[in-house]
Amino acid sequence: MPALTTYTTNIHPDWVDYNGHLRDAFYLLIFSYATDALMDTLGLDSENREASGHSLFTLELHLNYLHEVKLGAEVEVHTQLIAHDAKRLHLYHSLHLVGDEKELAGNEQMLLHVDLAGPHAAPFTEASLQRLSAISQEQIDLPRPALLGRVIGIKKAPIKP
Amino acid sequence: MPALTTYTTNIHPDWVDYNGHLRDAFYLLIFSYATDALMDTLGLDSENREASGHSLFTLELHLNYLHEVKLGAEVEVHTQLIAHDAKRLHLYHSLHLVGDEKELAGNEQMLLHVDLAGPHAAPFTEASLQRLSAISQEQIDLPRPALLGRVIGIKKAPIKP
Repeated sequence: MPALTTYTTNIHPDWVDYNGHLRDAFYLLIFSYATDALMDTLGLDSENREASGHSLFTLELHLNYLHEVKLGAEVEVHTQLIAHDAKRLHLYHSLHLVGDEKELAGNEQMLLHVDLAGPHAAPFTEASLQRLSAISQEQIDLPRPALLGRVIGIKKAPIKP
Repeated sequence: MPALTTYTTNIHPDWVDYNGHLRDAFYLLIFSYATDALMDTLGLDSENREASGHSLFTLELHLNYLHEVKLGAEVEVHTQLIAHDAKRLHLYHSLHLVGDEKELAGNEQMLLHVDLAGPHAAPFTEASLQRLSAISQEQIDLPRPALLGRVIGIKKAPIKP
């Protein structure tokens, strides 16, 4: 079972820089739409958000830019669930040209389930937990993404004696 | 010497979700504009980019969302240089309401200096290195941002015997 394909789009003119390349923030907008699509899958679509008063907030994310993406390109996001607990979901999105395996960018996200009435953190509903478990089970054979858990930094070269 | 204030804006209607809160990707768009402004400071503004054929590409970033930001809010980005080597720049942006110390979000970025003719990595010019060193020297007393070097993950609770 492959990662879910959560979002497909072409690269819009207002997402690119003067060179016709996708700007860093718009890679994240595409991944953000992919998270919205995953929310629908978890029963947290806009209709249910209004009915249940719950949503997912982004707590933290890490993004690696691997290749340029050009104006007009057709891209898709693959999504792999990494872990979840009662209130949090850790996932990994990767960006690809449609039908192509090569990873153009990778985005690790930590999301928090919130009760919008607070807003404050709230446990997932039983229905959402069942969906999360079902997807995790389907993805159990997927390898762990190589870019998970990275720390940003410039290593100083050792001083030679 | 405080961190540089690199960018100031109000929160636009097309940056917020159905709740009137700034969407995760548009925090990054604001930080991306702050990086553009820093590039100007380093002599990598659009005029010089065309003349020199060099620019900064985003390699990797980490973003922490600490507080909601609402439609119409006036915000500013403070920028602290963390490290650089011959070709790379590691920096930290934080988002604030104008004139307020409270950090609304923090964004660590690793940028690569590139020769657009390749494009391929290229050493900073002597002029850019001098600007980087001068800013780093001005910021030498700033404390290290608490959110630097974070790793995303859900820690499993230990199993009780």
